[in-house]
Amino acid sequence: MAKELKELTPREENYSQWYNDLVVKAGLAENSAVRGCMVIKPYGYAIWEKMQSVLDGMFKATGHQNAYFPLFIPKSFFSREAAHVEGFAKECAVVTHYRLKNAPEGGVVVDPDARLEEELIVRPTSETIIWNTYKNWIQSYRDLPILCNQWANVVRWEMRTRLFLRTAEFLWQEGHTAHATEAEAIEEAQKMIKVYADFAEKYMALPVIVGHKSENERFAGAVDTYTIEAMMQDGKALQSGTSHFLGQNFAKAFDVQFATKEGTLDYVWATSWGVSTRLMGALIMAHSDNNGLVLPPALAPIQVVMIPIYKGEEELAKMTEELEKIAAPLRAKGISVKVDNRDNVRSGFKFAEYELKGVPVRLVMGPRDLSNGTIELMRRDTLVKESVSVEGIVENVEAILADMQTSIFEKAKAHRDDMITKVDTWEEFKEVLETKGGFIYAHWDGTTETELAIKEATKATLRCIPLDSPEEDGVCVFSGKPSKRRVIFAKNY
Amino acid sequence: MAKELKELTPREENYSQWYNDLVVKAGLAENSAVRGCMVIKPYGYAIWEKMQSVLDGMFKATGHQNAYFPLFIPKSFFSREAAHVEGFAKECAVVTHYRLKNAPEGGVVVDPDARLEEELIVRPTSETIIWNTYKNWIQSYRDLPILCNQWANVVRWEMRTRLFLRTAEFLWQEGHTAHATEAEAIEEAQKMIKVYADFAEKYMALPVIVGHKSENERFAGAVDTYTIEAMMQDGKALQSGTSHFLGQNFAKAFDVQFATKEGTLDYVWATSWGVSTRLMGALIMAHSDNNGLVLPPALAPIQVVMIPIYKGEEELAKMTEELEKIAAPLRAKGISVKVDNRDNVRSGFKFAEYELKGVPVRLVMGPRDLSNGTIELMRRDTLVKESVSVEGIVENVEAILADMQTSIFEKAKAHRDDMITKVDTWEEFKEVLETKGGFIYAHWDGTTETELAIKEATKATLRCIPLDSPEEDGVCVFSGKPSKRRVIFAKNY
Repeated sequence: MAKELKELTPREENYSQWYNDLVVKAGLAENSAVRGCMVIKPYGYAIWEKMQSVLDGMFKATGHQNAYFPLFIPKSFFSREAAHVEGFAKECAVVTHYRLKNAPEGGVVVDPDARLEEELIVRPTSETIIWNTYKNWIQSYRDLPILCNQWANVVRWEMRTRLFLRTAEFLWQEGHTAHATEAEAIEEAQKMIKVYADFAEKYMALPVIVGHKSENERFAGAVDTYTIEAMMQDGKALQSGTSHFLGQNFAKAFDVQFATKEGTLDYVWATSWGVSTRLMGALIMAHSDNNGLVLPPALAPIQVVMIPIYKGEEELAKMTEELEKIAAPLRAKGISVKVDNRDNVRSGFKFAEYELKGVPVRLVMGPRDLSNGTIELMRRDTLVKESVSVEGIVENVEAILADMQTSIFEKAKAHRDDMITKVDTWEEFKEVLETKGGFIYAHWDGTTETELAIKEATKATLRCIPLDSPEEDGVCVFSGKPSKRRVIFAKNY
Repeated sequence: MAKELKELTPREENYSQWYNDLVVKAGLAENSAVRGCMVIKPYGYAIWEKMQSVLDGMFKATGHQNAYFPLFIPKSFFSREAAHVEGFAKECAVVTHYRLKNAPEGGVVVDPDARLEEELIVRPTSETIIWNTYKNWIQSYRDLPILCNQWANVVRWEMRTRLFLRTAEFLWQEGHTAHATEAEAIEEAQKMIKVYADFAEKYMALPVIVGHKSENERFAGAVDTYTIEAMMQDGKALQSGTSHFLGQNFAKAFDVQFATKEGTLDYVWATSWGVSTRLMGALIMAHSDNNGLVLPPALAPIQVVMIPIYKGEEELAKMTEELEKIAAPLRAKGISVKVDNRDNVRSGFKFAEYELKGVPVRLVMGPRDLSNGTIELMRRDTLVKESVSVEGIVENVEAILADMQTSIFEKAKAHRDDMITKVDTWEEFKEVLETKGGFIYAHWDGTTETELAIKEATKATLRCIPLDSPEEDGVCVFSGKPSKRRVIFAKNY
């Protein structure tokens, strides 16, 4: 059974299958009976809860409050903002009826008499319903800013789905803010993309490039979209969070005006920003190996697992007592510890299971350890084992958890940095993309035409225009036209 | 403006309008553009978050884990459990299409080519999709028990809606557990109704009667339903949480069998249990008065508000500094404190606002206080003001918060106890119901026929058969047939 557990498709062999095996076998998520919708299993949900808890704290620390808006949006709302309807109202779940009735042949059928006058859309994103609500909340500059966030489920009818990365229903948070001035709204959009970047780097141990989206890749209805882009182990990029400066587009679409300090009327300025369960996909793909998940300690539901090696019930009882004694001061430090003293499961199976689940530190105690005052410590990122003294174990484990958090980030960063290639010719562009992959840092002439031609030719998309990309004179790698700064292209999830 | 804020319809005059005014004016929730769906505003959501956080801790302490299951349920799943389809699959939101397209005349229309083969129901409750999932998780007794909970939104197409009490979409948690034995499942269902009762009494300060539902009022698909019933200030009952022993009904409907320890095959035993945003309605209606909300300190987002009375900017700055000095040690004790030093809002308006929002303790500092080392303290439940010394304020506030939590409960309990009337004749039953209301504690012959006849005649429903109702010989108040114990009738929300 230990063998069966470990049977992940090797990452080198088939990255995509390796990912899917890992998600399912580590008990993170699985496909459901409903096309494109996933079940998030308890272990996967526990990681998501940790992410939520940290992010929620960061949102509150930056002055935001949570609220909740309806799941359904009247169809007509989508037509109000021209770009938005193009981007969102197409592939979505449409509620047309509100009643079933018994079928004469058994079972139930939709009651044709219970047809809605106006169809309802299951929210793919909530700008429209929220701005329709904000209209009643905002009269004067005194009502601004409004800084709301909601944790919710959304639905986008995707044809090709992959667990966490692209599902019809997913969980996310969406911040929606309203401001009196353009400058304040832009500042908010930038602040939140930095919150996301901080979260990715400090908690997920995931280095990201922060940048603007091109006009073509912008959110439907946004004036400017900021993004964080991460690099996966297979050289493909993963967009991990976005923050949008929406200008006055939604205020105009829903007629939300306010009395300014100066006594004039003006439309309200807006932002929206979100991250989703897609972050789970990024976390898994960025760090894991052929033995299973590698979780940064900051997001690991179990940070330390303790396993006894024993013969007979008496020794098990003694070991358990000893392990609980070691666990207590660790728990007092806020470290989550699991003592796995199941008697009906072989140790080899337990080892494989916790490697698969990415538990950062494993402590194993055998009979000799018991008499020597030692314990075997293995860290999940390096799989290196060492015998350590039980005395001082708390400081030791604390130091290792802190070191792992940094090491996992440094490893991902070294890989990411290695995967940024500066290219100056179209031949080089194509060759690097095919042989090495990763982020291609190249000059672009700034037109959607060129961007789409590159995508057509190579499947590489313009991931972002990095905020820190310096001005330099160059020529577009595709069109040869002048360019003022390099941008990032990559194949992506 | 202070006047406008305070303008709640008096409770005595129109209880229902008072409730609605309160929910809207205290900024808890409002109706949305979607029929029957509410917007939960930041202050209301902050109370709900506190409830969630406490309940989630209680669920985890009793061994449960969170997970997430799909929003949509294939229509055919509902037909599998005969009683369940009758109870749930009728008034619900039905998704029939997955795409919109541009209309020639502008706007968007449902694309007739994108009709789903099988319609999807927006979950009104998740037993069916979860048991269809559990089928794959359970092979042997070693896989049991499964103790999952999910925090989610659900939709029931209600015709008459009221904020928090009855809305088409609402937020809730639903626990779904799977067990190897009948005894263990019954124990789980009982354990969780006790968790709910504990939560209601200790955190919501809401005394509840714990009992069984009659067969007629049972959850659709349950073998036994446990309920907690609370008494509102107007003498009407409010069902506040239920826990169901589902027997093997869903296991049989979804063919979930397991290999027992003894090597035989058996169907799995189930429970489900839930509380929802309806608890917000109970909390509001149980304690509040004509000045606004009265919140038990344990669930108040702001526990202490501090307001300076001052003249001029200089004094305001000095006062703010002083108030922050007092706030610091309170916050260090985990008490949430807001210092409201807004200069553009009159103190009278602030007073009214925090009374409306039910902030438990108000501290007001005027110029004389500043020199005397005193502060004016008002507690929200009694509205009694006293001048207290700043020295020792932390202990004082802590003691008052603790006392308020108890007092609010005791007051609600005294009212509830007063509203339980033992009646022995049908005339008395009708008279008490009309003149006094409340819980009527009477003998009942145990038949659905009598239960429905009583409801038909008086609108009173059988709220529950209390767990602690002693055996005693009596005759049914309606039919005169023999009865072994008294049950609780009431008009209800």
